[in-house]
Amino acid sequence: MAKTRLVVAGASGRMGRMLIRTIDETPGCVLHGALERPTSGCVGQDAGMVSGVGDLGVTVSSEARNVLTEADVLIDFTTPEASLAYAALAAETNTAHVVGTTGLSAEQIDALRAFGEETVIIQSGNMSLGVNLLAALVRKVATVLGEEFDIEILEMHHRQKVDAPSGTAFMLGEAAAQGRAIDLEERSVRHRDGHTGARDPGDIGFATLRGGTVVGDHSVIFAGPHERIVLQHVAEQRILFARGAVRAAIWGKGKPAGFYSMADVLGLNDV
Amino acid sequence: MAKTRLVVAGASGRMGRMLIRTIDETPGCVLHGALERPTSGCVGQDAGMVSGVGDLGVTVSSEARNVLTEADVLIDFTTPEASLAYAALAAETNTAHVVGTTGLSAEQIDALRAFGEETVIIQSGNMSLGVNLLAALVRKVATVLGEEFDIEILEMHHRQKVDAPSGTAFMLGEAAAQGRAIDLEERSVRHRDGHTGARDPGDIGFATLRGGTVVGDHSVIFAGPHERIVLQHVAEQRILFARGAVRAAIWGKGKPAGFYSMADVLGLNDV
Amino acid sequence: MAKTRLVVAGASGRMGRMLIRTIDETPGCVLHGALERPTSGCVGQDAGMVSGVGDLGVTVSSEARNVLTEADVLIDFTTPEASLAYAALAAETNTAHVVGTTGLSAEQIDALRAFGEETVIIQSGNMSLGVNLLAALVRKVATVLGEEFDIEILEMHHRQKVDAPSGTAFMLGEAAAQGRAIDLEERSVRHRDGHTGARDPGDIGFATLRGGTVVGDHSVIFAGPHERIVLQHVAEQRILFARGAVRAAIWGKGKPAGFYSMADVLGLNDV
Amino acid sequence: MAKTRLVVAGASGRMGRMLIRTIDETPGCVLHGALERPTSGCVGQDAGMVSGVGDLGVTVSSEARNVLTEADVLIDFTTPEASLAYAALAAETNTAHVVGTTGLSAEQIDALRAFGEETVIIQSGNMSLGVNLLAALVRKVATVLGEEFDIEILEMHHRQKVDAPSGTAFMLGEAAAQGRAIDLEERSVRHRDGHTGARDPGDIGFATLRGGTVVGDHSVIFAGPHERIVLQHVAEQRILFARGAVRAAIWGKGKPAGFYSMADVLGLNDV
Repeated sequence: MAKTRLVVAGASGRMGRMLIRTIDETPGCVLHGALERPTSGCVGQDAGMVSGVGDLGVTVSSEARNVLTEADVLIDFTTPEASLAYAALAAETNTAHVVGTTGLSAEQIDALRAFGEETVIIQSGNMSLGVNLLAALVRKVATVLGEEFDIEILEMHHRQKVDAPSGTAFMLGEAAAQGRAIDLEERSVRHRDGHTGARDPGDIGFATLRGGTVVGDHSVIFAGPHERIVLQHVAEQRILFARGAVRAAIWGKGKPAGFYSMADVLGLNDV
Repeated sequence: MAKTRLVVAGASGRMGRMLIRTIDETPGCVLHGALERPTSGCVGQDAGMVSGVGDLGVTVSSEARNVLTEADVLIDFTTPEASLAYAALAAETNTAHVVGTTGLSAEQIDALRAFGEETVIIQSGNMSLGVNLLAALVRKVATVLGEEFDIEILEMHHRQKVDAPSGTAFMLGEAAAQGRAIDLEERSVRHRDGHTGARDPGDIGFATLRGGTVVGDHSVIFAGPHERIVLQHVAEQRILFARGAVRAAIWGKGKPAGFYSMADVLGLNDV
Repeated sequence: MAKTRLVVAGASGRMGRMLIRTIDETPGCVLHGALERPTSGCVGQDAGMVSGVGDLGVTVSSEARNVLTEADVLIDFTTPEASLAYAALAAETNTAHVVGTTGLSAEQIDALRAFGEETVIIQSGNMSLGVNLLAALVRKVATVLGEEFDIEILEMHHRQKVDAPSGTAFMLGEAAAQGRAIDLEERSVRHRDGHTGARDPGDIGFATLRGGTVVGDHSVIFAGPHERIVLQHVAEQRILFARGAVRAAIWGKGKPAGFYSMADVLGLNDV
Repeated sequence: MAKTRLVVAGASGRMGRMLIRTIDETPGCVLHGALERPTSGCVGQDAGMVSGVGDLGVTVSSEARNVLTEADVLIDFTTPEASLAYAALAAETNTAHVVGTTGLSAEQIDALRAFGEETVIIQSGNMSLGVNLLAALVRKVATVLGEEFDIEILEMHHRQKVDAPSGTAFMLGEAAAQGRAIDLEERSVRHRDGHTGARDPGDIGFATLRGGTVVGDHSVIFAGPHERIVLQHVAEQRILFARGAVRAAIWGKGKPAGFYSMADVLGLNDV
């Protein structure tokens, strides 16, 4: 069976280089192209040299349309604006598109969803198996336990992270809200400081820690009368997200056009 | 609707007294009887006085058959031998029987199961909602994740606990083994000390901590490549188990004869 | 040696009743008096009956001056205003005064400190051995580790708690700030929400969880390059604080006038 | 000031390559030599190429004596036997010697200690700042808290680790035993399985978890009446240990002959 031909967007960034290394190590796929902005000093260099795995015979290019023409799947951890432009090109060139970009607004996600009518779009704020499985468990537990159990979501990330709570924390909050059939926006408590009064039953609380080099820890706490259930995910290394994206890309080749989640890729919809 | 008439076995023990207090606080049920061994100094005293809630008008008795005759459900956290004798009486008097006794052997559980053909038997090594929900989650996660994820079970209990690992830890290990369709006995690693060699894929490891006054913490760790999922339960106070048992008792009244688990009581079989 | 004669303020509250039970169980001390506001329905009743340990022969009174005259130590978990009034009476009657009241302002603490010139005042926001030892460790670690390590303070309490972060969290933050010789007010980050930017080196972050019946968990995280140290305290039962207060009271009898902390009581000043 | 000239033993192993990369990134030091066994296929290759940082102009050699002659410090994470042979050569060539090798017996450590009369020997089972600081805290807490607090040591490492408990867990246990002035061998409980009876006061318990790719987590739990203190260290990436070793090497240059620990290097002896 022919290897899946992958293109990496943002090839010279930290995530881009990690994706190139991961593709190099993964059977069943091959690096077909590497994209950067025209202004990047890496354009014209070998993508393998840029990522530290040695010469791969793939030159970093800023000509996305040309590169995508013969490719199967584009993997993209860039910016919301770049991802929307890539999605248009992916639809045009009939390439599947794995979007790991964070910070997408609800409108931008809707725009991606629309491209799912033309090609395969796989979008997730967190590409790890573990976090997506955790979200499925959170939804289920929130369905089973009533408001007697308070739901709190805690996350910790490295000192460089610029937003809070993390996209993954919101994804877990959304799963809890779905399980309870409530609106997350209305019921989320995003910080507590000073005289807060007693906790309102049914609220979903968030708390954020920042420090050091923590890749990403998330806990969802269900605190009830005299007992707690804690569902936790620890991401040890960022390579985890690259591997999830490559797994999604290989899965996406040849699927019918649609807007997919990692739960689809990982077969977690029945959990 | 008539209140469920409950009988507490081992009425003067720590768990027995807690059960009596819990029944006293719970709407929908009433303490109908309190049992002790004939040699107990509490026989003849008022059960409420023994448990610290004041006079309840129920005398501690050693005449189990008489006491059960007019009762709906017997709650029993005693010893394996006593529980089997009580199950025989429960079957004879057509009383439902909630068995929270720990340390039951496989043979003793089979014997209880047989009494389930004559009356309602509800048996669990841990009567809390949280632990039973956790077991359901562990089974599901073990089904989804392959041997790439190592399963470890950690528990901590107070310094007085005399057995290790806890019955609940085994219950969680059993759930994991069912999820993976393996035999727990064959694949469990119950301690590690010295030169152990690398971990065998597919094993289920146990680790035990003892100290202080910890009521009972359990964690099931799924450790995979660069990520971990941890499912944890914290029991804050022992009253939790008394409340679970009373909930089971109220549920059990009027059910058809059968051998039930807390998953049945709590409706967790579809989780 | 004569038993230490203790008086409990706020005798009919949850903490007051727990203090009475603890005194009843502790060798070396005796309940000498129990105080309540004149409007309390408990005035005139037996303090032991109010607290559930049976008749103690001590009547709940609203006449504080009379009760204190023959006492050794007053234990007081009430309100800031009441505590200041009690401190004045303690100074007047030459009674030692253990203040476990929370929510004291800096000015109120200064006022208590001033009474320490006349009698023994022992004040702490948390009477447990463990938390006070933790604070000593936090101060030391903050001294040793530079700004390469980020300091974060996490706490969880039950759903009824009305303020955030907890007084104990601030006490731990203060210990960290002292270790680093910085001003906590200036450098504390009390919540994070939205686009926060990268973490400033040297900040001390706080995060708050609320839910269920959690008595009180506190963690201080030192997150550095590729490693973390976490110092954690778990309070399992509120009786812990009552026992610490009674320990402080017994220690305080006969000491020279002064304003003391639990670190003095517990001998932690050299840690 | 001249850069510290470092030699890496076991240059082609996982730790050796990481050390070479770390030296390459660290100001103030330079890779002077790289050692391997004569049978290694890497002998004669460039050490930088072997470790993935590009040509460094340092050839991997098996001629240890020659290489050490002009060096300042040897860093060695190899085997106990090789480390003893290296220590003899370090003494002979007047080179400082950083020993990060694990699995050393008490006799082998004594033999290293003897070489400390001739040259600088820095030996530790764990080269991280955090773990060494944790050990100092554990010693102190064990000194302060009596046998009312039970001490338990928990560790988790990746599935490939072949021994249990970890050397670092023993190092923490030793710190606890020193704090209590007891003999660790006599009082350690290295596993619990079956009917163990109640915990003996004063014991130090160990528990071991294995799974996935965990670099190394250690917790020391002090569990007392109704409260716990937990002191935890999380190692996120193995580079941590390479950095600690290079820090030790730079510190060791020019020090008087002696047998040193990481507590000496890090200035933790007064903690």
